[in-house]
Order: sequence, then structure tokens, then C-alpha cells
Amino acid sequence: MSRQPTPADKFSFGLWTVGWQGRDPFGDATRRALDPVESVHRLADLGAYGVTFHDDDLIPFGAGGIEREAAVKRFRQALDATGLIVPMATTNLFTHPVFKDGAFTANDRDIRRYALRKTLRNIDLAAELGARTYVAWGGREGAESGAAKDVRTALDRLKEAFDLLGQYAIEQGYDLKFALEPKPNEPRGDILLPTVGHALAFIERLEHPERFGVNPEVGHEQMAGLNFPHGIAQALWADKLFHIDLNGQSGIKYDQDLRFGAGDLRAAFWLVDLLETAGYDGPRHFDFKPPRTEDLDGVWTSAAGCMRNYLLLKERAAAFRSDPAVQDALRAARLDQLGRPTAEDGLAGLLADATAYETFDIEAAAARGMAFEHLDQLALEHLLGAV
Amino acid sequence: MSRQPTPADKFSFGLWTVGWQGRDPFGDATRRALDPVESVHRLADLGAYGVTFHDDDLIPFGAGGIEREAAVKRFRQALDATGLIVPMATTNLFTHPVFKDGAFTANDRDIRRYALRKTLRNIDLAAELGARTYVAWGGREGAESGAAKDVRTALDRLKEAFDLLGQYAIEQGYDLKFALEPKPNEPRGDILLPTVGHALAFIERLEHPERFGVNPEVGHEQMAGLNFPHGIAQALWADKLFHIDLNGQSGIKYDQDLRFGAGDLRAAFWLVDLLETAGYDGPRHFDFKPPRTEDLDGVWTSAAGCMRNYLLLKERAAAFRSDPAVQDALRAARLDQLGRPTAEDGLAGLLADATAYETFDIEAAAARGMAFEHLDQLALEHLLGAV
Amino acid sequence: MSRQPTPADKFSFGLWTVGWQGRDPFGDATRRALDPVESVHRLADLGAYGVTFHDDDLIPFGAGGIEREAAVKRFRQALDATGLIVPMATTNLFTHPVFKDGAFTANDRDIRRYALRKTLRNIDLAAELGARTYVAWGGREGAESGAAKDVRTALDRLKEAFDLLGQYAIEQGYDLKFALEPKPNEPRGDILLPTVGHALAFIERLEHPERFGVNPEVGHEQMAGLNFPHGIAQALWADKLFHIDLNGQSGIKYDQDLRFGAGDLRAAFWLVDLLETAGYDGPRHFDFKPPRTEDLDGVWTSAAGCMRNYLLLKERAAAFRSDPAVQDALRAARLDQLGRPTAEDGLAGLLADATAYETFDIEAAAARGMAFEHLDQLALEHLLGAV
Amino acid sequence: MSRQPTPADKFSFGLWTVGWQGRDPFGDATRRALDPVESVHRLADLGAYGVTFHDDDLIPFGAGGIEREAAVKRFRQALDATGLIVPMATTNLFTHPVFKDGAFTANDRDIRRYALRKTLRNIDLAAELGARTYVAWGGREGAESGAAKDVRTALDRLKEAFDLLGQYAIEQGYDLKFALEPKPNEPRGDILLPTVGHALAFIERLEHPERFGVNPEVGHEQMAGLNFPHGIAQALWADKLFHIDLNGQSGIKYDQDLRFGAGDLRAAFWLVDLLETAGYDGPRHFDFKPPRTEDLDGVWTSAAGCMRNYLLLKERAAAFRSDPAVQDALRAARLDQLGRPTAEDGLAGLLADATAYETFDIEAAAARGMAFEHLDQLALEHLLGAV
Repeated sequence: MSRQPTPADKFSFGLWTVGWQGRDPFGDATRRALDPVESVHRLADLGAYGVTFHDDDLIPFGAGGIEREAAVKRFRQALDATGLIVPMATTNLFTHPVFKDGAFTANDRDIRRYALRKTLRNIDLAAELGARTYVAWGGREGAESGAAKDVRTALDRLKEAFDLLGQYAIEQGYDLKFALEPKPNEPRGDILLPTVGHALAFIERLEHPERFGVNPEVGHEQMAGLNFPHGIAQALWADKLFHIDLNGQSGIKYDQDLRFGAGDLRAAFWLVDLLETAGYDGPRHFDFKPPRTEDLDGVWTSAAGCMRNYLLLKERAAAFRSDPAVQDALRAARLDQLGRPTAEDGLAGLLADATAYETFDIEAAAARGMAFEHLDQLALEHLLGAV
Repeated sequence: MSRQPTPADKFSFGLWTVGWQGRDPFGDATRRALDPVESVHRLADLGAYGVTFHDDDLIPFGAGGIEREAAVKRFRQALDATGLIVPMATTNLFTHPVFKDGAFTANDRDIRRYALRKTLRNIDLAAELGARTYVAWGGREGAESGAAKDVRTALDRLKEAFDLLGQYAIEQGYDLKFALEPKPNEPRGDILLPTVGHALAFIERLEHPERFGVNPEVGHEQMAGLNFPHGIAQALWADKLFHIDLNGQSGIKYDQDLRFGAGDLRAAFWLVDLLETAGYDGPRHFDFKPPRTEDLDGVWTSAAGCMRNYLLLKERAAAFRSDPAVQDALRAARLDQLGRPTAEDGLAGLLADATAYETFDIEAAAARGMAFEHLDQLALEHLLGAV
Repeated sequence: MSRQPTPADKFSFGLWTVGWQGRDPFGDATRRALDPVESVHRLADLGAYGVTFHDDDLIPFGAGGIEREAAVKRFRQALDATGLIVPMATTNLFTHPVFKDGAFTANDRDIRRYALRKTLRNIDLAAELGARTYVAWGGREGAESGAAKDVRTALDRLKEAFDLLGQYAIEQGYDLKFALEPKPNEPRGDILLPTVGHALAFIERLEHPERFGVNPEVGHEQMAGLNFPHGIAQALWADKLFHIDLNGQSGIKYDQDLRFGAGDLRAAFWLVDLLETAGYDGPRHFDFKPPRTEDLDGVWTSAAGCMRNYLLLKERAAAFRSDPAVQDALRAARLDQLGRPTAEDGLAGLLADATAYETFDIEAAAARGMAFEHLDQLALEHLLGAV
Repeated sequence: MSRQPTPADKFSFGLWTVGWQGRDPFGDATRRALDPVESVHRLADLGAYGVTFHDDDLIPFGAGGIEREAAVKRFRQALDATGLIVPMATTNLFTHPVFKDGAFTANDRDIRRYALRKTLRNIDLAAELGARTYVAWGGREGAESGAAKDVRTALDRLKEAFDLLGQYAIEQGYDLKFALEPKPNEPRGDILLPTVGHALAFIERLEHPERFGVNPEVGHEQMAGLNFPHGIAQALWADKLFHIDLNGQSGIKYDQDLRFGAGDLRAAFWLVDLLETAGYDGPRHFDFKPPRTEDLDGVWTSAAGCMRNYLLLKERAAAFRSDPAVQDALRAARLDQLGRPTAEDGLAGLLADATAYETFDIEAAAARGMAFEHLDQLALEHLLGAV
């Protein structure tokens, strides 16, 4: 298995990731702005297959029609020259101060209308550039204090917004699905739809739920202390994993956006194992920020590391799954039994089965060891390449 | 507004709460076992209207038919004598070592069948005692290591279990709904359906979703750093708040189960405000553990404190909502605008409205202050009784 | 007790607090820059007694001598006009990209030297303006990856820096003490001296430990899930609470810098109770950020709220301590016994005392309830003004 | 480098680790009690060199003199038979309900005296069995509510206790040092001396600080979100790392005590790298709990995994440090410059050096990349055995 990325690996990067200049809450930019065209070429050289963007990454906020057209044209030429595609696009509804209280759920109605129009406009561009997924991260939809946002009403507004966007995509005949990106907090004290679960539940109340799925980000779930592979598994189980944001995070703290592989390495291993065995065939999208200690060389090293680490983990996960000792260990841990229905005999059968209750030897069942430590040690050694 | 609880306040307690003997991971019991009959009388004296139980709280695990009948009879007599009702019941699927790897999602199929039968049996008792809600906390459904549980398969098993339970309740004609109780971790490293959101999403994939809702617990969501009132708001928005577990928690750490009012006081205020203004009319159920430093006097002091704190917060929240200065502040923060649809004019109207985008004065909109600090300060002063 | 702040209350604010323009990791400034002179006047009007600053708050980074002199002069005139004092000053060693890998512990030696010189220069100004405390927050002293910083060596450099600063203050005859401000993370993945404890321990290895204490910040300790009043108590116990930064934080997440009283209200109550009963007589310094949703009116509302909340909590804590029912409850909880030495009889006496071990009735001692729930309920009701 | 543990590796285990029966806050024991003699033999077979104990692990609580003598004799025979040593011992001051409010800081003075006597008695046994380190974990020294513990007074009592214990060891001529073990919470809501830093600071106020150091536990610091290797580095820097408890923890949640290598793998790598390069020569002590899903086979698998993982990480860390590419990368990241004093020229030299400030090219310095991502990627690949 090669550790050299190719387009077949479906790696993609946001313009805002390698292009992050390093401005943080306590410090100014440490790197110059990157021209999107330069990023496209560098990413292609490194082996990526796709590039993604917020409207404002590509076209400066407030640019007029000519400037806009020129920016898109140059970008498209770079795509053509490199063969990179645009699998996904999204809207910046958080940087400008007008969004300080949210976009689709801002208390001010005119700001909500503006946010919808800004999004609709960029959906046209996304469709034009061939994107199949439109991500919506509602980073400013939230509050720092209890009365500032009536959450039930805000969810009404959020539903209204996504119903409108879905209607638009349908009416325009766009082959475009929406992926909601949850996050628990930062930049708001608490953000609406804080986890994959909340987003999945919300989608079920939309007018066109089939158009909507999730775009979970490693660090966002880990900021709530949640097991990321577990969340992805539930999204897959619900057929709702439309896109994924890969990066690294060291526990419950500010949003770190480390390169993929940094942070919780074991969770990254189980994630890759899950994506590869579950047949997820969407982009492997890196939404990370090269630390502001790095210059541009460091940026590209960091980007290359994201892909290399994915491939390394893929190689280790495959070896794990194909190892006969692992397969024995999975059976010893009765994973095969988990795959069998609990009651193929139906409710009546279960109720009539005395061995299920009346004569069940509880103590004997309780005494069985699960042999999970052996299995987990095998996994760890496969991860370490020590088998 | 009275601070003295009465049955009209719908306060209920689990037998296992006041009955907790204080065994913790590092220490032995500090209090004697409480007779359920004693608890019923004491709770009634304190002003509660309901009492709830796990099967094993009422009937010792493994008790034979005669012992069982006697226990139920004594309990029923105490209910009759006091007027207390049983609004909810639940199953203990976590204490016995047989459940060490889960109940409905244990890898061992026979344990899953046993767990279902144990639950079905107690549903009969719950119905017999008039319970309208059956809570399911899957505390052992989870894992400490990555390969030990295939989460997608485990969710299949979980769905199978709840589909069977729903079918049973329907077939038996029970007027009983199920409330799933999420928790992120403890006693398992990671638990399936870790938050209110995950549980709400899962319910949508069941055969009888209308029978299923959630039973969120204050501390459980706070163990993931989530805003509890926000989660409750989403559950209410989805018409799925079937029951609630009130207690206190001091941030992200082990499950503390402090009395209601301890822990995050401001969240408790906003929670009561939400429950009371949203018209939630289910039980106010306390699922807390009197600290093991307390003797039985302390237990009852702690239980009384739960109710008193709810009533105090209800009084403060009502004063907050009825204060004209607050109503002005809410308008200044444009909460009224949030209540208005964003686009009553529909997609076409929105697209045609130049004031929404082309001529929108972004900078002027951005310059408006939200006046949230004034509003929040008013809320804090109402909470403190300092207005 | 008045809720109207006066200079006797010793409230102070950093220029950077009310002056924060609302730039965050995902958004641009929402407010105009404030002239330090305007801030001084507004803070004086609100009842503050002091104002504090980073060098770059007062004098633009890189300003020449004339610009510097003019800025200081205007500031001093505002102080004179209002009567505000400068109890504390500090250095900005984090905003400029030159500090991206730290200041006193940057890997680059020339940057470390520059950081020291920048600090020494501002110490002169601090002394000139009458400051008695010089705060050092090493927000950039840390790392995101394991090999990037050799922590033991970095601590050598940190000690070297503080030893030099201490030497300078002594040689100059400045009546100035240093207060180290710990923080666990943000803006670095992990910061050196992450908690009050680590800073207190570090100080003991300095050449002039008597010149050094701590400046704990509410939110910083709470970002590590620690009990802030407990940390302050240990600092007081060690005679090292030289200064304090008051604000609010809602649990373990990014640094929120909410106004004092927001966030964990009960911790704020116990903190004020501790400061007031322990005889802390330094400034009550607010290091907060008015949320970026606010305009300038909101900024001043927020600043006023900080002070008002402190006074409200002080009033409630005083009432709590003077309530005879509380004094009874404290005795019932045997706080008086905690105040008595365990072994006035010395080691020999203890060893000779059979009642201490051989004949000690363990079970009887174990059976005593601590009556903490009653005491805590009294405290909660005092906080709520519900007694 | 061998992955097979030998006594030269200095691996030790607590009797309570492999002997943990799996009782947790929500469940009963899943495993039978282990005879200490059996544990000694099994641990020796696996390659350990040492075994440690709480008094009550070895001698049942309340046992009379004959029972005590017999237990010690059998244990000593097992030690003699296997060659295992007892490098450390400690006191159980948390299981019995008498310690529900603490031991050395219990509000009840007679309980404090009892706790001291219980400790003194076990110190004699520790010395008799050749232990050189006596660990003190004050798991019950803390509180769940604000007024229940006066922390300053409690620290007085804690100091009094340790001063007495130090005096005793000196008077008895024991070659025994004390190692304080910090923990932020659980089983108490907040525990005194919550982190390595707080413990290090506290030690400086004792009568015999040279006798006292720390025994940090991986999971305990990680429960506060702290970087464990950073904490160990500060303890080493202060010459206070007297002992260490190795295990695994998955972030900020309840105390998991996973086997070493589980949990945060990258932190484990940096920890082993630090211990091995810093010349730490004390025991590598595993304080873990084999998950309650395991039977006894799983217990020994888990124990063997702890040691194997340490050796694997040691092998990888050594390869990392000896790789010329890494040495280049360290230089590129200027770790060598960090090792050089900032001001060998002293304060006067620094002040006189115009290149340090007046003519320093700040922008050029700011533009230098730190090359940390390259270095960290090399570290990750060494960890993965992918170099």
C-alpha cells in the first residue's frame, strides 16, 4: 500500500486551511496571504484531488462583478491546469461583524435575509464549479447568555433557512446535497446543533431531509469529549455521512485544528478503519490550520503530513483487519454474536423461551471474560507497526 | 408563589436516589439501606407527588415470586396510604456483572435476550402501577476500546430492542411511552447515544418513533460541556421531552448527581425558566445522590433542597419574565424579531428583494449593538433577588 | 452595604478589557478602538479606582520617543484629572508575530533578549506611574507538539528571565512585586506554568522568591476544571496572592473572559467570600472581554456589571457569615474542629494515645453525618437572597 | 532492544491493580478476590521487579495481630521466592466510611488522629519490607460544597500531618521518602493539591521538604486536561519526581486507569522519551485497573500489555533521538538555542546591547519559521515505526 497520495485517495483541502495566516485571539498574522491559484497548484503537486472554499476565500468580501468574475476565472484555470476538482463549497457567515449574533438565526431579521442571499449566491457558484456537497457551519448561531437567544425559536429560523436552501437547490436542478457541520462552542459560548447527534436529529424535521446530512469535524466532537469514531458510526448508520472534516485536537479546549494524525492518534486510527471498512466514498477533507509558528514551508509540510498520516493509518488498519490473530480475537470477544439478531424468533418467541430468562444461568454468563484487552493490545501493536 | 412543595408541583424522586448508600469507586457504603416504604412516606411528607424505581430497587435481584409479590404489595400500600403515584419506572441493566458489556448491545446474544426479558417483565409492573413513562438508560451500552464494539451493528441491536419493547407496549395496550436517557460516559469509557441529540436522532429510525422520546439528565449533558437548557429546548422543539432528570454537576468530570441547584446555578435558572414557559407538564424528577458525607438526616435535607430550589428558581424566573424592564430589554435585543419568519415572502420574494442584499447596508447592520449584557445582568439580578 | 462602587472598593480594569475590539479567531473587530484617555474617564465615572495596561495598550507598538512621551503624558493627565491610579502594569509579549514561539522561552535567543528588553523598558514606565505590581502572563510560552520545546530547559530560561527582572527591580529600587499569571492553554496548545499550583512551585526556585507571587485569573483555572476558590486559598496560604484577575467562564472550553458574575456564579460567591474574609487588600482587577455582540454602550454596561456583581456577592457573603443559623451549621459540620491542631501533643503524644487508634470506635465515627447539605443549602439561599 | 520485560526495567504493580475486582459506581464486582501471594507470583512471571500495596490490600482492615503477622509472613515468603521487591507502600485512607470527609483534613479531629496512626503503623511495615518510597494519595481530602472545608485551614492540617510523618521517618532512621500524589477530583468534588504543581508548591512549606516529592499519575493530570509530560518535566526540574504512576486515560472524564499505552498514545510516547532521557531511575509503577469486562486471563494480558507498551515506546523514542534527520530537525527548530542562556552577559550586558532592542530586526525575526511541523511529523513516524 502506497504512502504517496494520489487523486484516487480523494484528499481535499479548504483554501482557508493552508491559507490561514495565523491570526489568533491573542496575536496577529504570522504569514502572508496565499493566492488561491498558488494553493491549487501546491495542493495538486502534493497529491490532493480537490480544493474547497468559502465564498470569501475566493472572492474578496464586497468585491464587484468584474473582480468577482476575474477571481473565478483564474481559479477555474488553475483547476483546469491541475485537474483538481471542487467537491464542496461553503459560505463564510462568521467573519464580518454583521454576523456577530449569527446568520440564519441572528435576532435581526434583515441580517438573516442577507445571510440567506449570500448563501444562495455562493450556491450558484458551487454548482457552477461542480461541487456536489454544500457545507453549512453555523459557527455564529448561538449565544453567550441565557436570554439572548430563544433556542426553540432559533431552531424554527434555522429550519426555515435550510428549507429555503433545499427548495432552491431543487428548483435550480442542482445535484447538490447539504452537509451540516456541528460544533459545541467557539466562537459562541454555546452553538446550536452542538454535536453530530443534534444535527442528525434536526435534519429529520426539515422539509427535504434526504438532501441533508452531516459534515462532522474531528476536533469539534472532541471539544465535547465525545468519541469521534462513534459519532461517525451513528452518522453512517443513519446514511447521513455526506462529508467529513479531518484534523487533530488535543482534548477539551479551544479549537486547535491540528494536522490529521496529531492529537488523539488512536481515535484517528479507529476513524480511518471505520471509513475504509464502511465504504465511505466521499472526500477525505482536511480542515486544519498549520500552526502559526510555521512559515510557508511548514504549511506545505503540514498539509503533506495530513495525507501521509491518513495513508499510514489506512495501511495499519488494513493489516489489523486481515491478521488471522485479530480475527480470532474478534471472535473471542464475540463480535460475531453482536452481528446476529437478538430475537429472530420475534417477540413471541423471545417470551416463550425459558432459556432466555427462567432458566438462564446468569452467574455463568457473568463469569465470561470479554477478552477486550487482548484485542485492544493487538490493535495498538498494529498501529505501532510492531506486529 | 409558595416555596413549599405540593403534589401540584409534580416533584418525583427515584427510590435509588434517597436510597443511595454512598458506595463509590473508592469507598464503601456510608449509610444503611432504606426500606422503599420508608422512602415513600418520607417523600410524601416532604411534598413530592411521585416515586420511581428500577425493578431491583423494589424487588431484590433474583427474588422468587412470593417475595416479589410481597414487596410489590407493601409498596402499593405505601402509595395508597400517602397518595404518591408512580409516574415512571425503569430497569436496572447495569449493576449485575452479567451486564458488564452491556444489555441490549452486549456482544453475547443470550445476555441481550435476558436483558430484554428482564425489561419486559418490569414493564408489566410499571403498567400495573400506573406508570406512563418507561425510562431506558443504557449505561453499560458502550466500550472502552475501539474494536470491542462495532457501533453500527450495536445500533442495529439497540433499534431491535426498542422496536420489540415498543411492539410489546402496543400489543399489551399499555398507555406507556419510552424515554431514552443519554449519557456520554461512565461507567463505560464511551456510551452509545451520548447526548440528547444522538438519542433524538436515533429515535427517528425506530419502528414506532411516536412512542419514544428522551429523558435528559442535567449532569449527563454537562459532563460533555453542553448547555443543558439548549438541549432541552431542542428536545421540546422536537416534541420529545417525555421526562427529565434534575440534579447538579460541577463541570466536566465524573457523574456527581448533586442536589438540584448545586453545580451550575445559572443553567438551573434558565432550565426552570424554559420548562415553566414552554408548558412542560411532566414530572420534575430528581435523579440525584445525597453526598456520602451525609447521614439520613442529610439525605432528607438534600431531597427537600432539590424541591425548594426548583420553587425558588421558578419564582425568580417568573419575576424576570414579568418585569417590564426585562420586556424592554428583550425588545432591545430584538428577540421579537427572532420570532418573525425570515422570509414570509418565500424564496422568490427573498430573491427579488434588493434591500436584502444588493442595497443592504452591511456596515450599519454590523454596528448595531445587541444589548445582551444589559439583558443578562437583569437576569442575574433577578436570580439573586436583587432587583 | 452599598452596591454602588467607590474607589474604596479597589476595582480596577485593564485598558485592553473595555478596549477589546472583538476580534476573535473567526471574526473581525466589531467595535472601534477606544482612546485610553476616554477609558480612564469612563472607568472613573463608573466607580473604579484603578486602570492597568500592557505597554502596547498605551503606546502603539514601535512608536518613537516623541509619540511615546505624548501618549504617556495624556494618560497621566487623565489619571490626574480623575484620581485613578495605576496599581499594576504588564507587557504584551504575545500579539506581535515575533513572539509566535514564546518570549522568555522562545527557542530563538535573540527573541528572548528582545522580550526581556521590552519588559525592562515597561517596568520603568510602570514604576514611574506608581504601579506596585508587575504582572507576567506568558501566554506564548508553550508548545503544540512534543519535541518543539524541552520543558526543563525552557524552565531554566524562564527562571533566568525572572531572576533578571527581579534583580533589575531591586537594583533600581523599585517598590514593585511581580505576579505570575498561569493559564493552561490558548493561545498555545499547552502553556508552561499551567495552573496556580505550577506557578507557586516555580517561584520557589527563583533567586528572589519574595518578590514573586501569582495573579490567578478565574477563567484560566476553570479552563482546567479546577475549583478557583481552592486555588486562591492555596495562594493565600502561601502568602502569594499578589493580584487577582476577575472574570467569568462557562466551563472547560476556550477562554471566554465573561464579565464577573457570569459563568460559575456559585464559585464567584465563594471567591468573594474568601477574598473578603481572608483580608486580601489588593486590587479587585477585572480582566474580561465585553462580548463582541455589544456596542460601546454594552461595553460600559458590562464593566459596571462586573463591579455591581462583586458588591452584590460581597453583601450576600457577609450576610451568610453573620447569620447565626450558619454559624450553628458550621459547628454542626465541625469546621471549628478543623481549626484545632490534630496533634498539639506532638508525635509522642499521638503515638501514646490509645484512644487515637487501639480503642478508637471507628464505626461510631463513620456513622456521624457531616451535615454539609444543610450548610450548603443555607449558602445557596443566602446567595439567592432568599433567607 | 528487547520488548520482553526484565527486572532491570524496574516495572512494578500495586496489589490493588491486578487485584481490582471491578466494582464501579454502577456495578458489582465481576472478578473474584486475588490472593496477594498469587499476584506476586504472576507478576514475577510476567517480568515485573516490584510490587506495592496499601496496608489494607495486604492485611484485611481490622485484622488482629496474628492474622496480620500471618499475612505479612506469607507475602514475604512470596517475595523471597520470586525475588520481587517492595519499592513503595501506601495507606488506604479512603475506602472505609470513616474517611468519608477526609483523613488528614477530616473536619473531625479524632478521625485525623486515627488516620495518622493508621499511616504511621503502615510506615513501619513499609520500612520493614524495604520500601524506599511512601506514597500519599489524599483522595478524600476535599469537598463537594463551598463551606464544608476551609481550605487554608485544611492545608494547615495537611502540613501538620506531613510534618509529623516526616519527623517520624527521621526519628526512626527510616530510609524512606514521601511522594504526594495529586488528583483534581473523584471521589471528592474537588480534591486538595489537585495537580503536580499544587503538590510541588505545598511541599516547599513543609518542615522537611527534602523528604517530600511527588508521585504523579498519568490519568490524574489528564483529568484536568493538562499535558502530562510537561508536568513531569517540571517535577524533574524541581528534583521532585520521586515515583510515578503509569496508566491510560481518554480525556477529561471519570478516572479510567486504563493500561499504559491506552488513552493518549502520543503523550505516552513523549513521557517515556522524557523519563528515559532525563535519567529517571525510580520504579515504572503501573497504577491501572484492568477493565471489568475482563476475566483473570484478561487481567494478566492487561498487565503484560502495560510493560510491553512501555518497552515499545522506549524503543521508538530511542530511535527518534538517534535519528540524524531528527537531530537536524531539532537544530532547524533551534532547540540548541533554547539550551543556551539568554543573558550570559548579565543584566548590564543585556541592557547595553543595542542589537537586543534598539537595532533588533523584529520583522525578520518574526518571519522565521520554527519548522515544528516537520519535527513533529518525524516523531509521529518514529512512533508508528514508519521511518
